[in-house]
Amino acid sequence: MSDDVRIIEMGPRDGLQNEKVAIGIEARIAFVEALVAAGLNTCEVGAFVSPRAVPQMQGSDQVLRAANRLPGEFHVLVPNEKGYEAARAAGAKVVSVFASASEGFSRANINCSIAESIERFKPVLARARADGVKVRGYVSCVLGCPFDGDVKPEAVARVSKQLRDLGCYEISLGDTIGVGTPAKARQLLRVVGSEVPASCLAMHFHDTYGQALANLYAGLEEGVRVIDAAAGGLGGCPYAPGATGNVATEDVVYMLEGMGVAIGVDMDRLLAATNQVSGVIGRPPVSRVATALNARRKTRPN
Amino acid sequence: MSDDVRIIEMGPRDGLQNEKVAIGIEARIAFVEALVAAGLNTCEVGAFVSPRAVPQMQGSDQVLRAANRLPGEFHVLVPNEKGYEAARAAGAKVVSVFASASEGFSRANINCSIAESIERFKPVLARARADGVKVRGYVSCVLGCPFDGDVKPEAVARVSKQLRDLGCYEISLGDTIGVGTPAKARQLLRVVGSEVPASCLAMHFHDTYGQALANLYAGLEEGVRVIDAAAGGLGGCPYAPGATGNVATEDVVYMLEGMGVAIGVDMDRLLAATNQVSGVIGRPPVSRVATALNARRKTRPN
Repeated sequence: MSDDVRIIEMGPRDGLQNEKVAIGIEARIAFVEALVAAGLNTCEVGAFVSPRAVPQMQGSDQVLRAANRLPGEFHVLVPNEKGYEAARAAGAKVVSVFASASEGFSRANINCSIAESIERFKPVLARARADGVKVRGYVSCVLGCPFDGDVKPEAVARVSKQLRDLGCYEISLGDTIGVGTPAKARQLLRVVGSEVPASCLAMHFHDTYGQALANLYAGLEEGVRVIDAAAGGLGGCPYAPGATGNVATEDVVYMLEGMGVAIGVDMDRLLAATNQVSGVIGRPPVSRVATALNARRKTRPN
Repeated sequence: MSDDVRIIEMGPRDGLQNEKVAIGIEARIAFVEALVAAGLNTCEVGAFVSPRAVPQMQGSDQVLRAANRLPGEFHVLVPNEKGYEAARAAGAKVVSVFASASEGFSRANINCSIAESIERFKPVLARARADGVKVRGYVSCVLGCPFDGDVKPEAVARVSKQLRDLGCYEISLGDTIGVGTPAKARQLLRVVGSEVPASCLAMHFHDTYGQALANLYAGLEEGVRVIDAAAGGLGGCPYAPGATGNVATEDVVYMLEGMGVAIGVDMDRLLAATNQVSGVIGRPPVSRVATALNARRKTRPN
């Protein structure tokens, strides 16, 4: 396997956004610093969304400003033009927009149809182009929807192509509720890959049902080379509270390293970043690798 | 993918044997009954080992006798001729023997070299042949050893072939400490498959580092069709106390069902079996699927 896999760290945004406990701005900045020190220097650090709706992301401007003093590429989520303006004012150089492959999830999550969400992003994309800002597009529910059930790969391909045509440099395909399995993931990537080149695709697979690594492996075999992951497996699942959220960065790094893919992440430092934020949140990480490494340390303190 | 995948349930043996808490014989029998009711009718139910060394397996004769009244195929582990005799006296029709692919683990675990362990199994295999008893062979540490580190696929192939030549109908390849990753698992199965047909191989992959499903998926692609798993992910790792043990049957079933492989396991009943034994042990299951399904039930009791 070629050694060009890239991890986009989601912990400070998709991870913390879905934790019950909102943690302070200073702790979030410290988390980003620890992640960058571990080599995770492409990192989504916040979201310019309503602090009433998502208190966990309050102060994302301060987190972004602090991140931008570090070496790396820092992304922030913007739901609309207003969010884009706020992100730009805080120095955003890469923003992400969030669409859905299922109508049910689009309505429930961003309160509009898929087509309306695409319309909403058009001015964001136009302004970003003028400003020289890169835009990353998320498509959620690519392998299943909590409202609509099965989602057709063709529906994912359609939204992905629309976002790509609007100017998104990369489309991140989200298995938002973690219901995918490897053969379906593979089939999805084949169908989407016929509309958007695999080199412009990323896999954003949640680990709710423990399938994420198997799905990522299947996707790597299909030639996709960008993986979204969150340190420690941060972030739960709003549709199965108490279950696992994002695939854990540690688990992804372990798999890639075992496959001979060098990705420049220092596992000890990553574990330190995870344990640091876990301490603030007040629950142990759900990452299998973090759990095993922490357990081994207790046994053999050297 | 063809629909002939078979799961060998390990919960009552490899699972409970590695739990800190030894549970009573009645609870173990109830667990086997619940597993069979869920469709897991090929099940390793005990081990005829020293009750001083492994108190968790005490009374395996009673568990086996109770299991043999149920519809299914019930295995027990026998370390030597004495264990074989005891197993036979309790009505064993399938026994398993346990070798290692690494000298370090063989010495630490069964206190003899690999060659000596094979010699020890010869009389067991001879008697089993005469008695019409099937013998399954485990090879441990196939993807790494806690003492010797890396293990060569050729070493695994050598032991596997020896066991097969001695009469084992199936060789179960154990990633005992869960350090494998998919490309290595695939390479291993290719090398072993050149000495022993894939139709005589099983995958026994632990989930210590969260890699088991990805490794199983890679192995399914190599044509291996038998998977060892333990309900709820029972059983820890003696080399990382607190970490995950066997791959969880629920997680394997979820993956296979998602891939369109019908295996005749009723997930609700399996979850009931897992929750029942978890209650006795006093800790929640580590299976991702069990965790997510239990979480969803709490949210939506219907």
